[in-house]
Amino acid sequence: MDPDRLKALLERVRAGETNVGAAVRELEHLPFSDLGFARVDHHRALRMGMAEVILGQAKTAEQIAGIARRLIEAGQNVLVTRVDPEKVPEILARVPELRHAPTARVLSHESQPVVARPGRPVAIVTAGTSDLPVAEEAAETLRMAGIPFERVFDVGVAGIHRIFGGLPALRDAPAVIVVAGMEGALPSVVGGLVRGPIVAVPTSVGYGVAFGGLTALFGMLTGCASGVTVVNIDNGFGAAMAVLRLVNAGERGAA
Amino acid sequence: MDPDRLKALLERVRAGETNVGAAVRELEHLPFSDLGFARVDHHRALRMGMAEVILGQAKTAEQIAGIARRLIEAGQNVLVTRVDPEKVPEILARVPELRHAPTARVLSHESQPVVARPGRPVAIVTAGTSDLPVAEEAAETLRMAGIPFERVFDVGVAGIHRIFGGLPALRDAPAVIVVAGMEGALPSVVGGLVRGPIVAVPTSVGYGVAFGGLTALFGMLTGCASGVTVVNIDNGFGAAMAVLRLVNAGERGAA
Amino acid sequence: MDPDRLKALLERVRAGETNVGAAVRELEHLPFSDLGFARVDHHRALRMGMAEVILGQAKTAEQIAGIARRLIEAGQNVLVTRVDPEKVPEILARVPELRHAPTARVLSHESQPVVARPGRPVAIVTAGTSDLPVAEEAAETLRMAGIPFERVFDVGVAGIHRIFGGLPALRDAPAVIVVAGMEGALPSVVGGLVRGPIVAVPTSVGYGVAFGGLTALFGMLTGCASGVTVVNIDNGFGAAMAVLRLVNAGERGAA
Amino acid sequence: MDPDRLKALLERVRAGETNVGAAVRELEHLPFSDLGFARVDHHRALRMGMAEVILGQAKTAEQIAGIARRLIEAGQNVLVTRVDPEKVPEILARVPELRHAPTARVLSHESQPVVARPGRPVAIVTAGTSDLPVAEEAAETLRMAGIPFERVFDVGVAGIHRIFGGLPALRDAPAVIVVAGMEGALPSVVGGLVRGPIVAVPTSVGYGVAFGGLTALFGMLTGCASGVTVVNIDNGFGAAMAVLRLVNAGERGAA
Amino acid sequence: MDPDRLKALLERVRAGETNVGAAVRELEHLPFSDLGFARVDHHRALRMGMAEVILGQAKTAEQIAGIARRLIEAGQNVLVTRVDPEKVPEILARVPELRHAPTARVLSHESQPVVARPGRPVAIVTAGTSDLPVAEEAAETLRMAGIPFERVFDVGVAGIHRIFGGLPALRDAPAVIVVAGMEGALPSVVGGLVRGPIVAVPTSVGYGVAFGGLTALFGMLTGCASGVTVVNIDNGFGAAMAVLRLVNAGERGAA
Amino acid sequence: MDPDRLKALLERVRAGETNVGAAVRELEHLPFSDLGFARVDHHRALRMGMAEVILGQAKTAEQIAGIARRLIEAGQNVLVTRVDPEKVPEILARVPELRHAPTARVLSHESQPVVARPGRPVAIVTAGTSDLPVAEEAAETLRMAGIPFERVFDVGVAGIHRIFGGLPALRDAPAVIVVAGMEGALPSVVGGLVRGPIVAVPTSVGYGVAFGGLTALFGMLTGCASGVTVVNIDNGFGAAMAVLRLVNAGERGAA
Amino acid sequence: MDPDRLKALLERVRAGETNVGAAVRELEHLPFSDLGFARVDHHRALRMGMAEVILGQAKTAEQIAGIARRLIEAGQNVLVTRVDPEKVPEILARVPELRHAPTARVLSHESQPVVARPGRPVAIVTAGTSDLPVAEEAAETLRMAGIPFERVFDVGVAGIHRIFGGLPALRDAPAVIVVAGMEGALPSVVGGLVRGPIVAVPTSVGYGVAFGGLTALFGMLTGCASGVTVVNIDNGFGAAMAVLRLVNAGERGAA
Amino acid sequence: MDPDRLKALLERVRAGETNVGAAVRELEHLPFSDLGFARVDHHRALRMGMAEVILGQAKTAEQIAGIARRLIEAGQNVLVTRVDPEKVPEILARVPELRHAPTARVLSHESQPVVARPGRPVAIVTAGTSDLPVAEEAAETLRMAGIPFERVFDVGVAGIHRIFGGLPALRDAPAVIVVAGMEGALPSVVGGLVRGPIVAVPTSVGYGVAFGGLTALFGMLTGCASGVTVVNIDNGFGAAMAVLRLVNAGERGAA
Repeated sequence: MDPDRLKALLERVRAGETNVGAAVRELEHLPFSDLGFARVDHHRALRMGMAEVILGQAKTAEQIAGIARRLIEAGQNVLVTRVDPEKVPEILARVPELRHAPTARVLSHESQPVVARPGRPVAIVTAGTSDLPVAEEAAETLRMAGIPFERVFDVGVAGIHRIFGGLPALRDAPAVIVVAGMEGALPSVVGGLVRGPIVAVPTSVGYGVAFGGLTALFGMLTGCASGVTVVNIDNGFGAAMAVLRLVNAGERGAA
Repeated sequence: MDPDRLKALLERVRAGETNVGAAVRELEHLPFSDLGFARVDHHRALRMGMAEVILGQAKTAEQIAGIARRLIEAGQNVLVTRVDPEKVPEILARVPELRHAPTARVLSHESQPVVARPGRPVAIVTAGTSDLPVAEEAAETLRMAGIPFERVFDVGVAGIHRIFGGLPALRDAPAVIVVAGMEGALPSVVGGLVRGPIVAVPTSVGYGVAFGGLTALFGMLTGCASGVTVVNIDNGFGAAMAVLRLVNAGERGAA
Repeated sequence: MDPDRLKALLERVRAGETNVGAAVRELEHLPFSDLGFARVDHHRALRMGMAEVILGQAKTAEQIAGIARRLIEAGQNVLVTRVDPEKVPEILARVPELRHAPTARVLSHESQPVVARPGRPVAIVTAGTSDLPVAEEAAETLRMAGIPFERVFDVGVAGIHRIFGGLPALRDAPAVIVVAGMEGALPSVVGGLVRGPIVAVPTSVGYGVAFGGLTALFGMLTGCASGVTVVNIDNGFGAAMAVLRLVNAGERGAA
Repeated sequence: MDPDRLKALLERVRAGETNVGAAVRELEHLPFSDLGFARVDHHRALRMGMAEVILGQAKTAEQIAGIARRLIEAGQNVLVTRVDPEKVPEILARVPELRHAPTARVLSHESQPVVARPGRPVAIVTAGTSDLPVAEEAAETLRMAGIPFERVFDVGVAGIHRIFGGLPALRDAPAVIVVAGMEGALPSVVGGLVRGPIVAVPTSVGYGVAFGGLTALFGMLTGCASGVTVVNIDNGFGAAMAVLRLVNAGERGAA
Repeated sequence: MDPDRLKALLERVRAGETNVGAAVRELEHLPFSDLGFARVDHHRALRMGMAEVILGQAKTAEQIAGIARRLIEAGQNVLVTRVDPEKVPEILARVPELRHAPTARVLSHESQPVVARPGRPVAIVTAGTSDLPVAEEAAETLRMAGIPFERVFDVGVAGIHRIFGGLPALRDAPAVIVVAGMEGALPSVVGGLVRGPIVAVPTSVGYGVAFGGLTALFGMLTGCASGVTVVNIDNGFGAAMAVLRLVNAGERGAA
Repeated sequence: MDPDRLKALLERVRAGETNVGAAVRELEHLPFSDLGFARVDHHRALRMGMAEVILGQAKTAEQIAGIARRLIEAGQNVLVTRVDPEKVPEILARVPELRHAPTARVLSHESQPVVARPGRPVAIVTAGTSDLPVAEEAAETLRMAGIPFERVFDVGVAGIHRIFGGLPALRDAPAVIVVAGMEGALPSVVGGLVRGPIVAVPTSVGYGVAFGGLTALFGMLTGCASGVTVVNIDNGFGAAMAVLRLVNAGERGAA
Repeated sequence: MDPDRLKALLERVRAGETNVGAAVRELEHLPFSDLGFARVDHHRALRMGMAEVILGQAKTAEQIAGIARRLIEAGQNVLVTRVDPEKVPEILARVPELRHAPTARVLSHESQPVVARPGRPVAIVTAGTSDLPVAEEAAETLRMAGIPFERVFDVGVAGIHRIFGGLPALRDAPAVIVVAGMEGALPSVVGGLVRGPIVAVPTSVGYGVAFGGLTALFGMLTGCASGVTVVNIDNGFGAAMAVLRLVNAGERGAA
Repeated sequence: MDPDRLKALLERVRAGETNVGAAVRELEHLPFSDLGFARVDHHRALRMGMAEVILGQAKTAEQIAGIARRLIEAGQNVLVTRVDPEKVPEILARVPELRHAPTARVLSHESQPVVARPGRPVAIVTAGTSDLPVAEEAAETLRMAGIPFERVFDVGVAGIHRIFGGLPALRDAPAVIVVAGMEGALPSVVGGLVRGPIVAVPTSVGYGVAFGGLTALFGMLTGCASGVTVVNIDNGFGAAMAVLRLVNAGERGAA
């Protein structure tokens, strides 16, 4: 029930055109969504402070372009994730406003400039160069959410000293996203050094018993550093959204 | 290298008893831990603001009692998780100060009173009564960390209206822990209604293809609500520690 | 919002004590459940035409007895499934009204007599005697729903001719529940002979690569007879509930 | 044994040319199929009220075209499922009568017009646009079976209010097919709102621990709403056939 | 249709009391089983040349004793496999004729003496002493089928020379049953040395990635020696039955 | 040690040029293979009565052609299995004598004509047309081994009456190879009707939880008909080799 | 062929009682084992420099005691691994010479004193106290092999500084055994610090997705530090045997 | 802290410009890496005695060429593993100094000639020709480490006598790398014959339940020959690195 319909009903009650019993029954039997559920959903989008997000993976170039066009025309910001590179030319031909971040496999558009949120930068840590696409997906998502971040890349075993070098930054960060494949041990190491929130993202890098990221996922879930949380394999977007939830809570806490 | 040894070395340098080159070599070859690494580790424990935690699962009653006794003598708070009920009488006979929370399978002791942290309560949401032990493990952990919390229990399918009833509380919470077994759909539902951080805990409740919590775990990781993070199956302790990390970050942010 | 609160609000609108805009806002912000969601839930229970069901598996004898007692006092019919035999004496000591069906691992009580629904009996088919507990769980559930049924037991490979002997009955049944372990081939055979709805229940009977029912489950899902549907391993209750849904639809269709 | 052979045998018995004992032995040793088994099989096809169905997946274009041609020449209706798009041009070149539904990956032909069955439309519900191919396969199959249906598409988390909006339709439907990937939670939600039969179809949409539909499948099987039944991953055809079985039973019930 | 009913029908045809068309229709519509299917089943039991077999695993002592008693009273030989040792005393108390082979977990009774079949002995080869129960289950089954056999036990890696020592016997055997756990390599070794039929039985011996016999099973299926066939994990009974099939074929071939 | 070297050693012993102790030591320290192990291996090839077999799967066209050429030059028969169709033109260009069986994905050459073995034909049974490649691989292997066979194809659920029609042939066969995908139920059905040896071959036909043949494999291993044995998924060659082992044993038995 | 038989044959050749051709044939057809294979096996045991080892897991107390008694009577050292504590009293009652190491679940006896091998001690590193049983099994095995070792226990995340403290010792060790459960990250850390051989042993410690050691196993196999090798879950014995192989090679290298 | 900074600090201490307390604090708070951790890391590279290694798998041709170029310019030896053949032309166009070993899928360059290490050659054993790429990756790695090796290829079941022929060489080798797919039985066989270290590499050769190398991996881990260690599937590089660790330890032992 949109507010207009609800208002009209109440007007009729006030005018005595509908008696109270009939109004109660009408309200009770209305589809719940009409009573605000859809609006809540709408509110949620607003409150999350994010662009509208399209999961590009299982959609055709035509479908992606169509949805993006409609959102842009509605004045909304757009973020398309997991875009197959082969679909990009056709999409850009149809929606040239979109900006392509090829490593992140992301397309985006700011109909309205993203407002930067205050606070120290979130750290995005990766174990190796092969984890870059997932890390960059997280980075693009944070960018569209206005959350400042910094990259602490390539700090796997061969360069673990860089973690120590960058430790002050990690300790100051309001959250750390750790992206790692193979055995997924990096979040445990970071979790042992940092007391703030850590979101671990397993990646599908590796071969043999890496099992396309499953070993990293399970390693992260059973890791020794308490309080590390995990998102789906290769889900850089989800990790950034988890951070957005943290930031949302922090902002509300500050209010 | 403890400060005393380091100080002595520098004194020798200052006194001209050791030349600079020799001091450099000595410093380079010292075990790193002696240079403060252990102390950092010690600091980390302090900073996390938590009792010392003992994973009771694979330890004998004698081992658990021994470690607990030592910690209590050192004036530290103690939290023992996953304690097999059959071990409890023997442990309590040896360390009667410990307080037993049987549903949570937790033993604890406050050598120093836990200081309550400020802020609105964290919400612990469960789908069914069978998820209680995991939820209570989270609750006991939050209690020992001084984090206020409230229980929103038993809001699975048969009682989903209670989520709506408790929605304002969930929306105000600085974080929501959602404990659920079966297909693990509850975090998705909560994630669609709340914009703050959500830590999902799959439980091993169920039979057949519930696979001891795996289906819930995978369901939570692939769920439709973005930014929900997950910890290991039945890991109520880990979920509470993830919340502690959030709280730590928030407090630092306030500083 | 219960009807009384809603009515009071509307009375105030009619009386001019609340203006329409304020009433709209108040209605929008009320917990949805108060607006009838809980009642819908209640209605659903009524419409399903079933006793209240308690999953006994992960509950203590005390918990089961407590819930059962409360439901009986409320005049409701009760069905408790997956009751560990060791808990039964204590439960019966506390709630002696309950009737125990040991093979089905079920406790039940009819506060009000179950009304038999019209129609031909549903057929419950099993492959071997080891499938009996699952089949009897289905049978007890159908009994509490008032749905007539007949048993066609033990028609596996060693007795497949009995299917042919009982074929007329199977063909007349409004639905067939097929309970089978091992490779789960029986639903395919029945599905090739019968044109009505078939609900297949894999059982955890077997050893080695029977995998506790997984092979039967996957065999049933990939079986050659089109349109066979499947429920969880050992879930005789769920199969009966699927039949109840069919019967509900049929009765509504007749109305 | 075709009727002619049987008749001839009986004529010989009647004429006294064969004595009873010999006739008994002859009847006992005849291949059973000759005595009507094949005919039963034939009858089954007639009773199911469906076109002949060809599983296109592992067949060459030449094989598919050959079988389709033969069926059309026999005056039968044809439904080919899971047709690789690359095979379609060659098939259509050979059998131009076939009608191609590309999203459903289905080819079909009505040698005789499909007769619409009476009754309210079955609802086909999908969670997201990526579930379309599976839902359309179900739709095409229902169409060839003469079963009326309506689409309730794209009602996942981002649009759950549409379920509420469309609830009356779902509640009136003789059956609901719910197509969903990811964690497969949608059937539980629908199952909690609707009391009629629900056939859930997991889809292979998703990545990481979506496991090509396994997580959705297991989630549906362990879901909290009782009586939901499940078919194989991506098996829209099978879901429609399950509905056809329901309709068959209903019609017989009406007779 | 039992012979008497069939005979009566034919008599009526012969007497002209039933005309041919009516008899054809009656024969067509009779349940097939009545026309001999059950009898075929009976014949199959006779032809297999084996005792009636009861799978003891999921049956109660009472059920096992009841079936065994009935078979013995019918003058049939009895073989009960996978009998839990705890059930044996009760079974023997009820059916004292049964003979217990504890290592094989088998009970048996010869109502009629088993007739020894001609031919060289089948070889049963085991890798280690832990494979004994499975091997003895095969041995007891062969004994009840009258098939001569010899044991070649404990020829794993620590004693592979015994294979070479016993090679002539293996090469003369009409079939070799190879029972092995761990990585299941023994059948490959035997298969490389022997040109006759080899039935491999994986056992659940081992720990860690032995996976209760799965690694042995998969190793046997992918083994390098061509033409080795495999039965289910721990299925010594099935291996012996496979040999019985070979012997049946050989005897028929000799006829 | 080739016979010549051994002979020379013994000549030296006889001539007194080597004393017995030295000869014993020399014999003990010789590589065993030289003492006949290789020859045994050679003998095995002869005794198996088969062409040399090349597994084409992981070899380049050049490697396959090279090995085939060498075998042909040595006058041996050649069978190449699992040949990728894309490699065939290059192989045939190099070794034009090879005969290509495209459905079976097999190349073969008879340097010497294969001698037909006596006996009734082996039956190769398939469930559906998609199982053809595996069945034909078995057929080609039997052909190169000189074993007569007959095809009983396409007897899955849609045509199970054909099994009954062909039952006499199946019952007369010295062995039955059953090739089936999906839930792998066909071998159980055949096993219930035939008392001779049955080798089941699961195929990777199917989708979803067919798991590329695993469900069929596990279904066959847990199937209800005793004594059915199984080979690896899609391993038509291995099934034929298992039959060759049976035939070898039968021939030896006849000798 | 034992040396005596071989010697006798050669004597006959030398004496001219057997001609060369006959001797060649006799040698060719002797079972290979008789020609020394069994003795080689015997030699292997001697060369490995170890006690005879009995895997206690699947053996009865009586079997274990019997084998141990026989070995002791033969003057051999004995090591029994994986001994169920419940079997120990009975075994010790029968073979009181055996020494019980309860944490290691090992029984042993030195019929002859184990000779200590030269060289620096091997390091056994554990992550947590729960890994003790596996580490002690390795320790007991090394002890019986005469290999010096030292324990570096409990150096998981909570005490990683102890690795740094003990680094010189690790770097000097001829080999490091790393025992760890959970995500199995410790071997990667050690492997990044030490250039010598590392044998990693995953343990079954943990819960949820620890999967009884599988996650640790896979983590170790995919770990970032190159050249780390792995043995089966909980296989402390195997890790020690791998070290024994290293030591054997080193000793031979020194010779 | 690089040595220069450290030296400067100490100079200031010596000069009295910084007092000891301040210097202690400064040293304590420096990032540890600056205090030599990075240098240790550097030392490790030197000590391992290996070229720098690039995992080519998930890197673009451009990335690989860039890193290789930088290493060559720094005068370091380079080894690139798992290079997709399609990337090779572009890489070689950019860095023509690189030497391509196509079977091994490896690129390498010796900026400084690799110094051959003393000692007998390591043995690389393979089961079949399909294991060549993995074996050659190990060979190329050993070559770049200066470790002598010899190939003992193609000694699977069809040629197991070659193992016996080459046994003396295997027994003399300081280590044996065994590369095998299928059921992975070869390492057990070698482990039973050789007393030195054995590193087993499972390969992804095979089909069906070979599971891309998993069955070989698990077979190797559960194999009967004690002390065999295993690396990841297809990880020839890792096996060679494990050998390098052995050689490192041996050289140190010799010092």
